[in-house]
Amino acid sequence: MPRVKCTIAYDGARFSGYQVQPNSRTVQEELEKALSVIHKGLDVKVTASGRTDAGVHAKGQVIHFDTPLAIPALRWPSALNSRLPEDIAVKQAEIVSESFHARFSAVGKEYRYKIYQEAVRDPFHRFYACHSPLELDQALMQKAARSLIGTYDFTSFCSAKTEVEDKVRTITKLEVIQHGKEMELQVAGSGFLYNMVRIIAGTLMEVGRGRIAPDCMPDILAGRDRSLAGKTAPAEGLYLWEVFY
Amino acid sequence: MPRVKCTIAYDGARFSGYQVQPNSRTVQEELEKALSVIHKGLDVKVTASGRTDAGVHAKGQVIHFDTPLAIPALRWPSALNSRLPEDIAVKQAEIVSESFHARFSAVGKEYRYKIYQEAVRDPFHRFYACHSPLELDQALMQKAARSLIGTYDFTSFCSAKTEVEDKVRTITKLEVIQHGKEMELQVAGSGFLYNMVRIIAGTLMEVGRGRIAPDCMPDILAGRDRSLAGKTAPAEGLYLWEVFY
Repeated sequence: MPRVKCTIAYDGARFSGYQVQPNSRTVQEELEKALSVIHKGLDVKVTASGRTDAGVHAKGQVIHFDTPLAIPALRWPSALNSRLPEDIAVKQAEIVSESFHARFSAVGKEYRYKIYQEAVRDPFHRFYACHSPLELDQALMQKAARSLIGTYDFTSFCSAKTEVEDKVRTITKLEVIQHGKEMELQVAGSGFLYNMVRIIAGTLMEVGRGRIAPDCMPDILAGRDRSLAGKTAPAEGLYLWEVFY
Repeated sequence: MPRVKCTIAYDGARFSGYQVQPNSRTVQEELEKALSVIHKGLDVKVTASGRTDAGVHAKGQVIHFDTPLAIPALRWPSALNSRLPEDIAVKQAEIVSESFHARFSAVGKEYRYKIYQEAVRDPFHRFYACHSPLELDQALMQKAARSLIGTYDFTSFCSAKTEVEDKVRTITKLEVIQHGKEMELQVAGSGFLYNMVRIIAGTLMEVGRGRIAPDCMPDILAGRDRSLAGKTAPAEGLYLWEVFY
């Protein structure tokens, strides 16, 4: 059976996250419903590179599924998009070998975290960026960010509930980019722990407000204690940007 | 009684437009509800520079209201924002003289119309820009736009239902700006007829697709016939950007 890899985008505002759960609207459920229609009622299971939480967006999530249909790769996006709700779109599709797996073949991911700095809240950003009523010091944030690039135990930067044993991850890029009132954190790495990007974002925002000194970052890492880092930044600013294979 | 002038922004996606109407969620109604709470049940009537239709956004709508309360201008935005829904925000307020009127004192307005050009629809733009699956020719559009700058009878560019007698208006600026896949039309003028900006946008998009030649614009104007111009572009791309006094 051909395996299809799709790159998808979704606006997370009205989803209870990616993964199917009872009585909730999820991205996976919408994808599987659309595929079921195309397959005339047949159940088609979709596998993603990973889950995203409620309110989190994706510009480049990657999924795969197996299909008995002989639809050419180029036709898959329009076949699916005409059956998907407007807050999900398939951007690109290709036929891949059975050895490809959206989750296990991924070698890295990039996330972006958007912040807007404005005294008054803005209606257009409410679902799409984190609001900071105070201006953030981009230079301090970039300095702190540099300390997180590399291979470390990120226990301090993941949800205390995380059950994964090995909390060592590698961050290959962590940039703090400013365009006027808007700021974007670009974080790429080999893999991420639960809430890791949102805790990094929350901590860097506290650095930007002068509440945590950039020099403290190595100690926060070394302490391996979630309470040493800043708050978990809200979901609405987070975008799964790209998955690398 | 002090008169308060406020500059407000709203995301028009979930409103049936600006003006109060039965059984519909409107911007005016939400503003008047918030003011009524601040005034402990007293009705406060809000006057805007003009209405906007369902789905149309505002970055710089202007309103005024009269109040018996002695709240300083600087405190009005937060007093209102804490009682307004998240899709409306008061950006700025000032105390003005009784001779100021949000509608009658306005001497001009600027609207912007956003278009994104991408083969596949994008979930993040669905409420905030018009989708063009085809690339538009910006140079042709700018050439056509130039013919509309000046004082003309805009009968061809307003809804056939318009009941206003005098359809002469002055456009002072009409720019077609391209940033990658995104295009923005910036239109300023003394005043606008019903649907005028959306018909200009729809016509310029047909120019950009090569369906109407830029040289035809003077004839479309001179014909004074709505059927000569292009389609009315959808509401979601339109922003009331600024009101001039």
